[in-house]
Amino acid sequence: MRVLYGKNPVRELLRTPGEGLFELWLAEGGTRAAALGELEKLARERGAKVRTAPKSKLDRLAGTDHHQGVVAVVADYRYAELGDLLGRAGHAGASPLLLLLDGVLDPQNLGAAIRSAYALGAHGVVIPRDRAVGVTPAVAKASAGASEKCLVSRVVNLASTLEILKEAGIWSVALSQDAVRSLEEVDLRGPVALVLGSEGQGLRPLVRRTCDLEARIPMAGELDSLSVSASAAIALYEVARQRGIGRKGTKV
Amino acid sequence: MRVLYGKNPVRELLRTPGEGLFELWLAEGGTRAAALGELEKLARERGAKVRTAPKSKLDRLAGTDHHQGVVAVVADYRYAELGDLLGRAGHAGASPLLLLLDGVLDPQNLGAAIRSAYALGAHGVVIPRDRAVGVTPAVAKASAGASEKCLVSRVVNLASTLEILKEAGIWSVALSQDAVRSLEEVDLRGPVALVLGSEGQGLRPLVRRTCDLEARIPMAGELDSLSVSASAAIALYEVARQRGIGRKGTKV
Repeated sequence: MRVLYGKNPVRELLRTPGEGLFELWLAEGGTRAAALGELEKLARERGAKVRTAPKSKLDRLAGTDHHQGVVAVVADYRYAELGDLLGRAGHAGASPLLLLLDGVLDPQNLGAAIRSAYALGAHGVVIPRDRAVGVTPAVAKASAGASEKCLVSRVVNLASTLEILKEAGIWSVALSQDAVRSLEEVDLRGPVALVLGSEGQGLRPLVRRTCDLEARIPMAGELDSLSVSASAAIALYEVARQRGIGRKGTKV
Repeated sequence: MRVLYGKNPVRELLRTPGEGLFELWLAEGGTRAAALGELEKLARERGAKVRTAPKSKLDRLAGTDHHQGVVAVVADYRYAELGDLLGRAGHAGASPLLLLLDGVLDPQNLGAAIRSAYALGAHGVVIPRDRAVGVTPAVAKASAGASEKCLVSRVVNLASTLEILKEAGIWSVALSQDAVRSLEEVDLRGPVALVLGSEGQGLRPLVRRTCDLEARIPMAGELDSLSVSASAAIALYEVARQRGIGRKGTKV
């Protein structure tokens, strides 16, 4: 069991079929907005228990006051298997596009990256089990609910995962500001995994060495001045651009 | 007077010549990291008063506990004039590139957008005075200190600003998911202002109508599923890409 909070994450949960919802808690009092009424209706349609309580109770449930008056008690986050991510690409008849994040500790950055991955057509996000944040309620909130729709796989060893992807014909491209080639100069139309490190530490040497290619984002300011979530958005966009997604009505 | 907090924003402030620094407060106790020692040294070199206090005092000064043990009391944020932004482009001998944000209320989003603008070579950011967040300490923190280096201009009327920019030969491109053309199909090599609205509301109709062109980011998911800061990063990257910045060693 875990909690989800905030209007967007809870709305996305309620719209996703099959997700286990146990209870929906709404803050009582004067500022019950229309959005909360919509969530209440959706929850009742799914047969979930809807309860109201003072804001302080929701603060305790969520462990934060950033819940916007709505907290859902739901089944544990279900991480996907790596094969599920490839299956989603296969099902769509598209070249796989994965986002691998090494050592991201900041929930805001992970949530933002998952949101961009989903919006820009990635088939999933891969994160390591250790020394990185998982899909916590804060991450779900920062993703504006995208974590409930985007497949996220948590693996023990990112370097081994890259080897498995290589076997599956997926090229891995490490984003690094030291790279000789800019992102645009790399052909990203085939099956590709974009690999980004954390802001402070960058990619671990073994992970970096296991990647097939390196590429950088052209920058005007100092090194490392883009956040990992901005870098992810840009790299995912560059793939979509090269593949002509959106332009010619191509489907992902 | 205002406060700045967090290691990155304070470090950037200390490295920016001419910024008024009155006091640097450091949290006392066991976890005085090396980074704080560096900041203390920089502050002393600039002749600022350095004081230590319990964490609770820093919490009160900053109005948050996200200060990482460092709070600086500094001169008010100095917004730039529109002319300063154009001057910066002229000084660099580059086609002006500005980022205009309409009605962004979330400090995290504004901070992230300022950070990307600086990293990707924009000559400044323009925000409206009303119904939008200004450069608050939370914005400075979210920008990782970029708000101390990037010029930010706050204007009374964004539509009038677009008219002034038009007179100066700068084309304004509104980002909108309804646009017929994708960003890539618009020539962004000349003087350009990228205009983005808030996530909830989008661009106000008058602002949108005043823009010369509209363009969209190709997306796979639902409309509006990218955050305004991710959209800004992508649009700024597309300009840098078209201008060949970074690729051929071009300077901004």
